[in-house]
Amino acid sequence: MTARTCLSIILAAGEGTRMKSALPKVLHPIAGLPMVAHVAAAAKAAGTGDLALVVGHGAEAVNKAAEKFIPGATTFVQEKRLGTADAVLAARGAISTGYDDLLVLFGDTPLIEAEALVAARAKLAEGAAVAVLGFRTDKPTGYGRLIVQDDSLVAIREEKDCSEEEKKITFCNSGVMAIAGSHALALLDAVGNANAKGEYYLTDIVGIAAEQGLGTVAVEAGFESALGVNNRAELAGAEAIWQRRRRHEAMLSGVTLIAPETVFFSHDTEIGADTLIEPNVWFGPGVTVAQGAKIHAFSHIEGTKVGPGCDIGPFARLRPGADLKTKAKVGNFCEVKKAVVEEGAKVNHLTYIGDARIGAGANIGAGTITCNYDGYSKFFTDIGKGAFIGSNSALVAPIAIGDGAYVASGSVVTENVPDDALAFGRARQKTLPGKARELRARRAEAAGKTP
Amino acid sequence: MTARTCLSIILAAGEGTRMKSALPKVLHPIAGLPMVAHVAAAAKAAGTGDLALVVGHGAEAVNKAAEKFIPGATTFVQEKRLGTADAVLAARGAISTGYDDLLVLFGDTPLIEAEALVAARAKLAEGAAVAVLGFRTDKPTGYGRLIVQDDSLVAIREEKDCSEEEKKITFCNSGVMAIAGSHALALLDAVGNANAKGEYYLTDIVGIAAEQGLGTVAVEAGFESALGVNNRAELAGAEAIWQRRRRHEAMLSGVTLIAPETVFFSHDTEIGADTLIEPNVWFGPGVTVAQGAKIHAFSHIEGTKVGPGCDIGPFARLRPGADLKTKAKVGNFCEVKKAVVEEGAKVNHLTYIGDARIGAGANIGAGTITCNYDGYSKFFTDIGKGAFIGSNSALVAPIAIGDGAYVASGSVVTENVPDDALAFGRARQKTLPGKARELRARRAEAAGKTP
Amino acid sequence: MTARTCLSIILAAGEGTRMKSALPKVLHPIAGLPMVAHVAAAAKAAGTGDLALVVGHGAEAVNKAAEKFIPGATTFVQEKRLGTADAVLAARGAISTGYDDLLVLFGDTPLIEAEALVAARAKLAEGAAVAVLGFRTDKPTGYGRLIVQDDSLVAIREEKDCSEEEKKITFCNSGVMAIAGSHALALLDAVGNANAKGEYYLTDIVGIAAEQGLGTVAVEAGFESALGVNNRAELAGAEAIWQRRRRHEAMLSGVTLIAPETVFFSHDTEIGADTLIEPNVWFGPGVTVAQGAKIHAFSHIEGTKVGPGCDIGPFARLRPGADLKTKAKVGNFCEVKKAVVEEGAKVNHLTYIGDARIGAGANIGAGTITCNYDGYSKFFTDIGKGAFIGSNSALVAPIAIGDGAYVASGSVVTENVPDDALAFGRARQKTLPGKARELRARRAEAAGKTP
Repeated sequence: MTARTCLSIILAAGEGTRMKSALPKVLHPIAGLPMVAHVAAAAKAAGTGDLALVVGHGAEAVNKAAEKFIPGATTFVQEKRLGTADAVLAARGAISTGYDDLLVLFGDTPLIEAEALVAARAKLAEGAAVAVLGFRTDKPTGYGRLIVQDDSLVAIREEKDCSEEEKKITFCNSGVMAIAGSHALALLDAVGNANAKGEYYLTDIVGIAAEQGLGTVAVEAGFESALGVNNRAELAGAEAIWQRRRRHEAMLSGVTLIAPETVFFSHDTEIGADTLIEPNVWFGPGVTVAQGAKIHAFSHIEGTKVGPGCDIGPFARLRPGADLKTKAKVGNFCEVKKAVVEEGAKVNHLTYIGDARIGAGANIGAGTITCNYDGYSKFFTDIGKGAFIGSNSALVAPIAIGDGAYVASGSVVTENVPDDALAFGRARQKTLPGKARELRARRAEAAGKTP
Repeated sequence: MTARTCLSIILAAGEGTRMKSALPKVLHPIAGLPMVAHVAAAAKAAGTGDLALVVGHGAEAVNKAAEKFIPGATTFVQEKRLGTADAVLAARGAISTGYDDLLVLFGDTPLIEAEALVAARAKLAEGAAVAVLGFRTDKPTGYGRLIVQDDSLVAIREEKDCSEEEKKITFCNSGVMAIAGSHALALLDAVGNANAKGEYYLTDIVGIAAEQGLGTVAVEAGFESALGVNNRAELAGAEAIWQRRRRHEAMLSGVTLIAPETVFFSHDTEIGADTLIEPNVWFGPGVTVAQGAKIHAFSHIEGTKVGPGCDIGPFARLRPGADLKTKAKVGNFCEVKKAVVEEGAKVNHLTYIGDARIGAGANIGAGTITCNYDGYSKFFTDIGKGAFIGSNSALVAPIAIGDGAYVASGSVVTENVPDDALAFGRARQKTLPGKARELRARRAEAAGKTP
Repeated sequence: MTARTCLSIILAAGEGTRMKSALPKVLHPIAGLPMVAHVAAAAKAAGTGDLALVVGHGAEAVNKAAEKFIPGATTFVQEKRLGTADAVLAARGAISTGYDDLLVLFGDTPLIEAEALVAARAKLAEGAAVAVLGFRTDKPTGYGRLIVQDDSLVAIREEKDCSEEEKKITFCNSGVMAIAGSHALALLDAVGNANAKGEYYLTDIVGIAAEQGLGTVAVEAGFESALGVNNRAELAGAEAIWQRRRRHEAMLSGVTLIAPETVFFSHDTEIGADTLIEPNVWFGPGVTVAQGAKIHAFSHIEGTKVGPGCDIGPFARLRPGADLKTKAKVGNFCEVKKAVVEEGAKVNHLTYIGDARIGAGANIGAGTITCNYDGYSKFFTDIGKGAFIGSNSALVAPIAIGDGAYVASGSVVTENVPDDALAFGRARQKTLPGKARELRARRAEAAGKTP
């Protein structure tokens, strides 16, 4: 990081028609976070003080998402789509405030790495006026080439303007650049639109700066840093790279992923060491998993705290507000929502727990349902420490089951059960000898089958 | 397409011993459709009018599958396995009818592309007698090489007969060919069996035609077009390619696949734009998904209509006959079979809905079961508009729950509930103070544990 | 195999700090079996008679695991970590017993192949004193190079000691070696520690043997044979290779894996021919699947016998002790534990079966729960042949339901039901006309909503 002040301008006005979506392109998520917020995070990590977002297509939706995911960003509207230099100038108000460094970024390159931005800013600190991020590729066709001579970036040449020799250059333009704040407005205002499309190209400032004798350089970034997303196949490609990085990081930090390619993290997932994650686990936003937990296959977890040594799944669904304390267990075909499951409590089979507290060490039998909703409101179920809820019981909230209380299997519980009390809520069994045989004969006849 | 008439002959007589299966090789499915039906579909897409299927091993099973999956195809039996030319001649009856073009295809190359067949037929239209599909590969070892001179296909040379120079040729024989109908029978009848195995090889017609001064050409097809399936590893390989193509197509058309490699489509799956599909979703045959639906992870869907804006899963199982209208919701650990879920109705947790109608806006509580089967017949459950079914209820079909009716949690409902009525079917709760403590002491003693 | 006696010494003393785990490195599992047990299995398959395990870090845990997974192995403790030769000499007691062949293996190379070990032992039989396993790689940087002249292994050269010419050698040292028993102790004792780290290196015995005029050779093994696991990313990499091999083997033997990369086998999984396994199936230890079974997507199976023609899943959870006989069916959201499901019985939907027998042809309705636990002990449920358990029933164990008996839907069954009897255990329904409308109005008011 540098003590120099820095403004990052993220261009997020594009329509993204190839996404074929009602959602503006830059809001399509990677790991549950809009692409543009990934770019903002990289800018922040590279020492950006202020963020400007240039919006256009779908401006309202982008602004709203920015409020949530990029708090503090200022948005500017690009009225007409007249090219990248024009887009940057939409933020003239911010630029003219006067910053040491300006970073120009794109809202659809979610894998941009802070390290590369830091390197570009370092070039400004060393005196360059413009530092362009480039990447190397074996297949440069279609990209603008960076023409470098003696450590200077001489020009950015579009494919169609390249000589045969220049076409062999494998160092390509990512579009991202750092511009010295003191020169920025002058350079941008000098860009013209005397070209086929009549647009103002940001890349032109390299030539303009060079003509003025200002320092222009290229900084190499990883290929992925420049990866733009233009359709949903490319979106999936970027997601795959993000996930691969995150999984690798998790494994090196001491998390066992038996089949890393089948575990999906969210942008904010936190996993403690010596955790075991079986194949096919999905983490939505807002999950923290403490040390020593086991998460079995086919688990779907979001907005949940998983405590130390918890045992989750297989086939567990943990929804926002689930809070599992030390060594709690949530087993197969169980859903937990907005509920605390205290230390060592067990919710093992075919159970729905919503709006509830399960006391420490309590045992919730198979097929238990907390009936939390009456069609209008949600009500709370409180289950005491060491309580035992018999299988296939329905607990009709609002309801409190006391510490050490016992609910008989198959009960419908509608009244509170005091500590250490036993509650029944089921009918007595009647058994009719031979009746099944009769019934079978009758039904088989009705169904036209031989019994 | 051409106005020329076309007969496609698909060779499907092989035993496929390396499949180690009771099912004939060509019936092993890709994306839920037998391989031979994929080949037939490509033939149709290339303008084939009539289809002949040459069967041998497992003829009965192949015929039966053909009736279902390739309606209108005529089947011919190859009595003895005397080589590919002999197999084609099993369809002599069809060939002698007189077609402009003949296509010879293989039932175990499910990825054959219509474009390549169209290109081969175009060569016939330009005057060639035989047009052979070839493919390029860096590793040609083992394949027959296509010897091309001045745009003519001079010969198809088997690996073992190749000179060192010829072995370097990377253009290989796929086996698939187009034959001018006017020459077909004469060429085929001219094939001899004076070779090591004593078989009649279809490839020999290239040399025969060339000798007669007829035009013979090679047409390049994609490598995958020629990919034959001989064991189940190759079957999985072909499935993987099919799925990769289909996923890419879906994404470009505006479907978000967060992890495309974990979503499995069926041959006939239809997905609307701006649909979100989380990782790990399985589509069996017969599914259509309308625009704007969300399908969460771990969903298993077959024979189902998913309406606009529906929200499915995670952990949803939709079975044949499920028909979800606009914005219906089917949540975790829910199974829906042969049932209409009307607009905005919710089936959110741990529920079985079979043979039913769920009225618009109805709310089905967690753990609800439609008891549709009595061991002999299936019965219908009708739930009215805006009805509320309390959690853990059993609805014993045949039964009708009226519009706006309310079923109390934990009820067993055996009689119809009129519109706006309230139904209870549960026992009253009895609570025995202190009894759990006693019970605990007794059971702990019985189990030899300290309470 | 050879008739020569063989001792394998597995070095398993390493700390494995990069695993960041409380579990010793060699106990981290691949396919459910500790890495060191995979190595022992390869040694056994290569004709090893006796196994010595050299332990150090986490010795207690390793010893305990060895008792379970490598019965018969003798363990030796390496007191100080003074290098690989020192580690081997920790087993001096075993070596001095006198074996024809000695194999030195590493506990963290779980993919070592028996074939390579057999080849190395064959070299000893032909007279060599030392046979070192090498592997070829395009990227040899960092590995020790095997310097071979005229079929003799002249030296093992560490990267840092290599000349520029030697650095180009792509044949590298795996560390694994076979040593003639008659020379072993003398060679090992001759190793010195006059090097930078002051350690005793096993590789030095090659030079020592060569100086003494003894035969030293290199034997080429596959790259994977030498793959060491040092962190959890490498652990996942080794798991992936193991799984890929196992899936391929399954497919070639006649098992259909629609998406092999999504099916996870355990080290001891056995699958019969003509079995279909849909995507996303997890096999824990102890599973056998008979011929012709179908295992649908999202199934999680461990410690289970699946009989011929069974139909499992999707979303089935089979736990240890599940024993499914011919054509039994366990469907979605069903858990079966320690229970026999007899021929043709059906457990199709949302059911928990634990500690039970389900008689042949019995039908278990959706939402059935065997209430097997009272908080202290587990009890048995016995369901007779052809019985019908109505949906959403709770069977309170210990309990017996007779052959052909019928339990009405929604029943709580607490007393045995004789053969052919009909049991009810549910309350009568009460219906209050118009009450739902009233209730709705009241609740809407309470919730502050318009009804």
